[in-house]
Amino acid sequence: MSKFLSDNAAPIHPALWEAMRAADHADNPYDGDRLSAELDERFSDLFGRDCAALWVATGTAANCLALATMCQPHGGVVCHEEAHIEVDEGGAPGFYLHGAKLMLCPGEGAKLTPEGIAALIDPIRDDVHQVQPHAIAITQATEYGRSYATGELAALTDFARERGLGVHMDGARFANAAAFLGGSARDAAGAVDSLAFGFIKNGGMNAEAVVLFDPEQADLVRYRRKRAGHLQCKGRYLAAQILAMLEGDLWLANARHANNAAQDIATGCGDRLMHPVEANELFVRLTPAEREALRAQGFEFYDWGADAARFVTAWNTRDEDATALGKAIAAL
Amino acid sequence: MSKFLSDNAAPIHPALWEAMRAADHADNPYDGDRLSAELDERFSDLFGRDCAALWVATGTAANCLALATMCQPHGGVVCHEEAHIEVDEGGAPGFYLHGAKLMLCPGEGAKLTPEGIAALIDPIRDDVHQVQPHAIAITQATEYGRSYATGELAALTDFARERGLGVHMDGARFANAAAFLGGSARDAAGAVDSLAFGFIKNGGMNAEAVVLFDPEQADLVRYRRKRAGHLQCKGRYLAAQILAMLEGDLWLANARHANNAAQDIATGCGDRLMHPVEANELFVRLTPAEREALRAQGFEFYDWGADAARFVTAWNTRDEDATALGKAIAAL
Amino acid sequence: MSKFLSDNAAPIHPALWEAMRAADHADNPYDGDRLSAELDERFSDLFGRDCAALWVATGTAANCLALATMCQPHGGVVCHEEAHIEVDEGGAPGFYLHGAKLMLCPGEGAKLTPEGIAALIDPIRDDVHQVQPHAIAITQATEYGRSYATGELAALTDFARERGLGVHMDGARFANAAAFLGGSARDAAGAVDSLAFGFIKNGGMNAEAVVLFDPEQADLVRYRRKRAGHLQCKGRYLAAQILAMLEGDLWLANARHANNAAQDIATGCGDRLMHPVEANELFVRLTPAEREALRAQGFEFYDWGADAARFVTAWNTRDEDATALGKAIAAL
Amino acid sequence: MSKFLSDNAAPIHPALWEAMRAADHADNPYDGDRLSAELDERFSDLFGRDCAALWVATGTAANCLALATMCQPHGGVVCHEEAHIEVDEGGAPGFYLHGAKLMLCPGEGAKLTPEGIAALIDPIRDDVHQVQPHAIAITQATEYGRSYATGELAALTDFARERGLGVHMDGARFANAAAFLGGSARDAAGAVDSLAFGFIKNGGMNAEAVVLFDPEQADLVRYRRKRAGHLQCKGRYLAAQILAMLEGDLWLANARHANNAAQDIATGCGDRLMHPVEANELFVRLTPAEREALRAQGFEFYDWGADAARFVTAWNTRDEDATALGKAIAAL
Repeated sequence: MSKFLSDNAAPIHPALWEAMRAADHADNPYDGDRLSAELDERFSDLFGRDCAALWVATGTAANCLALATMCQPHGGVVCHEEAHIEVDEGGAPGFYLHGAKLMLCPGEGAKLTPEGIAALIDPIRDDVHQVQPHAIAITQATEYGRSYATGELAALTDFARERGLGVHMDGARFANAAAFLGGSARDAAGAVDSLAFGFIKNGGMNAEAVVLFDPEQADLVRYRRKRAGHLQCKGRYLAAQILAMLEGDLWLANARHANNAAQDIATGCGDRLMHPVEANELFVRLTPAEREALRAQGFEFYDWGADAARFVTAWNTRDEDATALGKAIAAL
Repeated sequence: MSKFLSDNAAPIHPALWEAMRAADHADNPYDGDRLSAELDERFSDLFGRDCAALWVATGTAANCLALATMCQPHGGVVCHEEAHIEVDEGGAPGFYLHGAKLMLCPGEGAKLTPEGIAALIDPIRDDVHQVQPHAIAITQATEYGRSYATGELAALTDFARERGLGVHMDGARFANAAAFLGGSARDAAGAVDSLAFGFIKNGGMNAEAVVLFDPEQADLVRYRRKRAGHLQCKGRYLAAQILAMLEGDLWLANARHANNAAQDIATGCGDRLMHPVEANELFVRLTPAEREALRAQGFEFYDWGADAARFVTAWNTRDEDATALGKAIAAL
Repeated sequence: MSKFLSDNAAPIHPALWEAMRAADHADNPYDGDRLSAELDERFSDLFGRDCAALWVATGTAANCLALATMCQPHGGVVCHEEAHIEVDEGGAPGFYLHGAKLMLCPGEGAKLTPEGIAALIDPIRDDVHQVQPHAIAITQATEYGRSYATGELAALTDFARERGLGVHMDGARFANAAAFLGGSARDAAGAVDSLAFGFIKNGGMNAEAVVLFDPEQADLVRYRRKRAGHLQCKGRYLAAQILAMLEGDLWLANARHANNAAQDIATGCGDRLMHPVEANELFVRLTPAEREALRAQGFEFYDWGADAARFVTAWNTRDEDATALGKAIAAL
Repeated sequence: MSKFLSDNAAPIHPALWEAMRAADHADNPYDGDRLSAELDERFSDLFGRDCAALWVATGTAANCLALATMCQPHGGVVCHEEAHIEVDEGGAPGFYLHGAKLMLCPGEGAKLTPEGIAALIDPIRDDVHQVQPHAIAITQATEYGRSYATGELAALTDFARERGLGVHMDGARFANAAAFLGGSARDAAGAVDSLAFGFIKNGGMNAEAVVLFDPEQADLVRYRRKRAGHLQCKGRYLAAQILAMLEGDLWLANARHANNAAQDIATGCGDRLMHPVEANELFVRLTPAEREALRAQGFEFYDWGADAARFVTAWNTRDEDATALGKAIAAL
């Protein structure tokens, strides 16, 4: 049986277990420990610009805490109509942003474009009766496994600057996007204001990083993280996970592995692919009978509507399983 | 050097490491895994009454999620004026309860009594201009290391029923209270409506249990947990910690160890004790010079105001360190 | 010059001035006065079923306070995608409902139907990752001047009961709908759970009624009204406006007058009408040149997109102005 | 029968009725009318410094909207422990400030002092576990009818600047304080950042002004006012009330009348006075028997605890009633 259900329940990478065990000594509580203290510098190095980085246990919290630095309670956040923050976070943005509004924008492959956003927000009357946009949230890689190329990102952040909007990047699968785009975290993040850098889907247990490219916002996030009950007293175990991921670019290696497995499968999919495979997710047109046939061969995956399926690879997907799945699809 | 700073940064108990490693296989994400599924039953057994139990990463979140089942945004929660939720949770109740009010009550040893609460709430006019109390929050053991005895608890919960108020118990050090009171979780919880059962200070990494003695409230907490970004996708590692703690009453053994160490230290404190030692915390009158003398001997601890110190023992406090500290204090 | 811009800035009806002046004596503050005390009974009589009624100064507050009785912060309210609460209330529902979500449904004439709502909510997975609907909000008359007939209302409220959803009616122009439907408040409200009964657009100054058909919800609204700063200390002047409106069915007479004026205009519109005229609003296809021609004749109104205009009549629209407008449009 | 219950339910001053009637013509809705447009300039003239001024229907809303410009959801507002915002506004600050905390400070006569505030906030640890103060709220005149003199105000605002805190003034009875202090609005407001300038207790119907001495904050208040359902569509009637109050300093004349009546009563109170009479409220030691005796003579007033009474005068208190009350108390 080989699983392509999701990357979000995969085992922990051995290097992270080791790092957590190594942190198993008394140290200062909360984020006063030696490991947490390293984060700002490590991420500043990685991105080549000053940033502050704080651990948090989930991507939902990471996204919301970052958005709170750029959207006031009476404002709005433009996001794709299928964005995770809109569809799958249980209304968390409404909670963390104290009732601010998500403003839903269509877009191919779950991507936003300046044109699409302009079409959404230009008709908003500049008066108090209508909620005004304060920020834009994009997902890298997107909910359909697409990656924003450098030029696309620049177009979005330029547009945002022009309109006075902040830009947050939901990076639950940021590593997969970065791997696809050539391996540079810097390029994959572009000039966004904040990034929820995901590690959990990439081999972590329960640590994501809120990366703030305006380090002056860190204080707000620190207070809000505590206020949201997300300041763990043994935060060193979260910092340990993140540092182990950054060490020797493990985050990139894991993502490359998953992406490669996805490409292997893609080889067998041909015209069945609903979206180009630019990360570690595949959306594949498959009839119910075809899906049944695959499941009979031991492959596990989710249906995607009535006539398709979603396959997700992970850091621990076995090459032979991916190859087998690709072949099985090709043979249908 | 021996540390009595706090129990909140102690290492993880080996049994929990083992349990987490054993959970390191693919399973259903979030709380759909086999371990999370066991929690309700295990806690129902422990407390001898039907309850629902949900993991969450911090005590702050556990307290607030439970309080949200019993206090509406326009209501108030009566708590001690030195309660952790008032003093040390960064305003989290204001966030989770959408602006509800903490109503502060004095009381010896950070304990509440029906009389004290009545004195606070009876003068509240029964009109819309004044915030009405919806719930009571107590801490077991209290912020001064005191434990509510069975009769005290019963008096409080009877009073609450009479007034139509819910009762939540902050059990960050519930195990220490239960150990002090004779070892029965049931007695230590009395008839409260909800309990934030703490494991982190007792050898856990980042898992507490929200225990709801009205299981019908579980749904509300489940939705709110997700909405607060506290639904981890690899929740099985949190469930694993909790189950390992319950297994063979490890929670109780760890707490007994810490309590015993505290009693050892207490032996040397005599009249210096500001509060009876009924858990694993000691508040000891010590002049600055005396504190300096103790620190010179390698003991680490926090000042408590100008003329006292706080010592906290933990599951891993070495007996010899506790004994040495008690002697050192006695010798001052 | 004759104005058809909106009914929301019209003068106060003389009977209301009189009633307010008659209330200009010392009385109990807030809603403890003799006039406010009459509201429950007067509205119960009007609707032929027990209800509680509270004054509030704006429709926005009335809608939000009512919705708060049926939607929890983690839930959602289904409304039309062009509903006033979504488009024109500055995000007030997000504020009053503490971050709950508006779930947007299309529908002809800004009307909702059971089928449309089912299509929206049936795909929502019954899990904590997705916001669940708690309530439905409809507008009577709708944002396009359409009125829900008795059967349409019954279908919606039956559907809501079946799904366990509350139903709120935004009645900013409830009087116009009731007048169109034959004059029965009871029929125009159907079996909804709450109604924001608007008087301001119908000749009032600043008093709407929150009508709760489950009177047990009144307490919640009373506390929330105060908490929102909407409990005026001289509430008797608001109660006076409302009672004067109910007296001798002035509310209905005013609405009939406005509706008749709208029908007069409609006579001249023919195929230009974008929606049947079922209240006091007309949406009329008019080119820019045609609009200019009308304005040159002294008619004031708002553009409605590029190729249409909106005309609104009011309690004080002069018959001759309406007739003149109808003829002017016919003559284009 | 002569009433000294409160000034909050007194009739409307004739000049305001006249002004409202004069506004009874069609005009732009909301605050787009000609009267609302005058407010900024009129208040800037009155205070001798640039300010923005917005009408709102209640003091509760005025206070909360102003506080939202200076306190973030995770912060705190220092106020007197008997401040109206803490005791009598139904938790409105918790709602409007999204869960921010009121930090309660004692102080004679319901007054705050820099020393008192420092004693409250200096012990707050500068870390995320404790809510940090963002603002100070004072009441002019205070809840005990005391007025802050120029020097007292300057000391408070200097202290606030030093600590980086905003200062809001609840001016429900600002006019009475200004009248007591010599008649200068400027002196009575000192260098606060915002003022809820009350008119309702001074002869208005339902209009207070939020005065923002940093006009850049006006936009935030405008959006939040709408979001709170406080943007009335016929706002011109509120603006009319306020302008009529400012016209010829009617606000001051009304307040002087009320203050004089209070002084008349005070003449008869001698040692019975619990607080100096510096506005239009008197707190008078009176036994139950004495209160009964006064009530038997036709005087109406509220008990103030077991052994005192509160008397409030208003713009319409008859001189002979005040004199009679003073004599009646003296004769006890």
